[in-house]
Amino acid sequence: MEFPEITPPDQQAHRDAVARHEQLIKPTGSLGRLEELGVWATACQGVCPPHPFVRPQVVVFAGDHGIAAHGVSAYPSEVTQQMVVNFLSGKAAVNSLAAAAGAAVRVVDVAVDWNPAAGGGPPSVTQHKVRRSSGAINRQDALTEEEVTQALNAGVAIANEEVDCGADLLVAGEMGIGNTTPAAVLVAAMIGEEPVSVVGRGSGIDDAGWMRKAAAIRDALRRARPFGGDPIALMRTVGGADIAAMAAFLAQAAVRRTPVILDGLVVGAAAMVAEELAPGARQWWVAGHRSVEPAHTMALQHLELEPILDLGMYLGEGSGAVAALPLVQMAVRVLAEMATFTEAGVSGPLGAPLPAR
Amino acid sequence: MEFPEITPPDQQAHRDAVARHEQLIKPTGSLGRLEELGVWATACQGVCPPHPFVRPQVVVFAGDHGIAAHGVSAYPSEVTQQMVVNFLSGKAAVNSLAAAAGAAVRVVDVAVDWNPAAGGGPPSVTQHKVRRSSGAINRQDALTEEEVTQALNAGVAIANEEVDCGADLLVAGEMGIGNTTPAAVLVAAMIGEEPVSVVGRGSGIDDAGWMRKAAAIRDALRRARPFGGDPIALMRTVGGADIAAMAAFLAQAAVRRTPVILDGLVVGAAAMVAEELAPGARQWWVAGHRSVEPAHTMALQHLELEPILDLGMYLGEGSGAVAALPLVQMAVRVLAEMATFTEAGVSGPLGAPLPAR
Repeated sequence: MEFPEITPPDQQAHRDAVARHEQLIKPTGSLGRLEELGVWATACQGVCPPHPFVRPQVVVFAGDHGIAAHGVSAYPSEVTQQMVVNFLSGKAAVNSLAAAAGAAVRVVDVAVDWNPAAGGGPPSVTQHKVRRSSGAINRQDALTEEEVTQALNAGVAIANEEVDCGADLLVAGEMGIGNTTPAAVLVAAMIGEEPVSVVGRGSGIDDAGWMRKAAAIRDALRRARPFGGDPIALMRTVGGADIAAMAAFLAQAAVRRTPVILDGLVVGAAAMVAEELAPGARQWWVAGHRSVEPAHTMALQHLELEPILDLGMYLGEGSGAVAALPLVQMAVRVLAEMATFTEAGVSGPLGAPLPAR
Repeated sequence: MEFPEITPPDQQAHRDAVARHEQLIKPTGSLGRLEELGVWATACQGVCPPHPFVRPQVVVFAGDHGIAAHGVSAYPSEVTQQMVVNFLSGKAAVNSLAAAAGAAVRVVDVAVDWNPAAGGGPPSVTQHKVRRSSGAINRQDALTEEEVTQALNAGVAIANEEVDCGADLLVAGEMGIGNTTPAAVLVAAMIGEEPVSVVGRGSGIDDAGWMRKAAAIRDALRRARPFGGDPIALMRTVGGADIAAMAAFLAQAAVRRTPVILDGLVVGAAAMVAEELAPGARQWWVAGHRSVEPAHTMALQHLELEPILDLGMYLGEGSGAVAALPLVQMAVRVLAEMATFTEAGVSGPLGAPLPAR
């Protein structure tokens, strides 16, 4: 899988947005992070002033993980398929959050352990399915080499489908019982961390579960160590079809010059893979939030992304990214709608030169 | 000014919301702070599940401060009146943010240093005017005793007007060149802090301005020290008509059982006064954000409020509160719209008792 070279967000639009922030009727910098977000969005859109995003799209990548059978999750694997049904009926958390934020939600069955013919939903859900579940990564490969390619192609295709349908901002979410285990392994493998430092409580495991998860991560990490610098091999040995598809989705979003709000640990791990596959892709992303998972903070540091929110969330589904979406929209609207000092007849700072008209 | 005893938010609705969060199809606690916010909003509304707020209202309290003539602000005082005009024309930051969040904005001239007959806007802006500017608090009282009463009455009246017109969530914002100086003095006086620890850069003063502001705060604090435990006397000696009106507005919101999102330092200082005037009022408030002003963090700690956002903002106008409004709405929608495990046919945690229907 080769991605074309990533074109960075537009530098002229970036400079224009910085300059515009100095002319709007507020002290420069007084909107803090909102100013930076507005500048980033402007650079992604390539024109200043920017316009509010009109079709933000969440894609939830659903997949099961063989490792779940090893007691690493508080929930049974069947919850993955049950939640796919609930995303379709609009009753899950990400549905409410996305509705509030003005975003649409699509769920894609990449590797759910069920037969989609038995009720897996419309083609938008099922057409990119790679396999039923990914392998138990403490003992076996997650995927074959062909399946890695298939999953990456799925992610590229999904990004293209959404952008071609008009999506102007993308969010990757995920649903998969057990998926924080491969995500933590991937982060540890890529940055050389010890197993115990990346073990989090996922959806809320107890202490015994934490120990089982730590053992699974340790065993998987041993299998992954030879491949730390090879993201494709990592996807095969300790990844998963859903995570590989997400990684390609995030990389392809950058190829298509479409900004992305990242979610928590699982998306963060996929983002680290994506940045390896398509260096510079991260310039098209912002981090929506910091999850409570320790490996997520490591992934954010590695990607040099500062999260917008820090609300103690750990649900996944894209929820933390969607929660930050209104702030991104606000950041854009400020640049798009506010008056300049000159337009508004407002006096500038004392002792400062008169603003240019 | 005597406020009636504050009725706390509904405890049964609070318990119902906590219980509902355990039944919704997500790990309990996985939405982090959003869950707490939803519970708070439910308790304020008094019924579970809650409904999204339908008429959030921002009120910007505008007032000038004599202390501005002592070089404590980066901007000239005339900016206060210029910004009132811009709030009315919808071109200020809070207008964009509020429009994005679905809130209306009203601006009230409490003590702007202009003649409202000369273009101060409609009666909703001018009818509660107390005086032109408040006194330079390093050397003189901000207000007379009668003006304090008048300002407090204005705040009560404004809260009543908004709630009577259907506002179901309130935000107090402020506009007033120099107003972080009395705000910092109030915080320091109420919690016994040293002057230097409460001096912030306001709208962005340079080092020389910082020193002038520190001197002004020191002198005002000397005048305030005898009145640390008497909020009415503090309003008179080192407050301001706008801050007094805001304090009464925040207290009256609680009297009217209407939740509030607090903004930054100036609103925070008013909130500390309000909590003195109407103990328990703070149960009806959440802190929208943490501003960069050091005294704001002290005010939040004193009120035992944890801010939702921490985005390095320091604009005022209610901007930090309005930025948090979409998260409050999301928190409510999650409780209102998500399915329960039983409704959705989703398996609960492994080893957990079956959820009650």
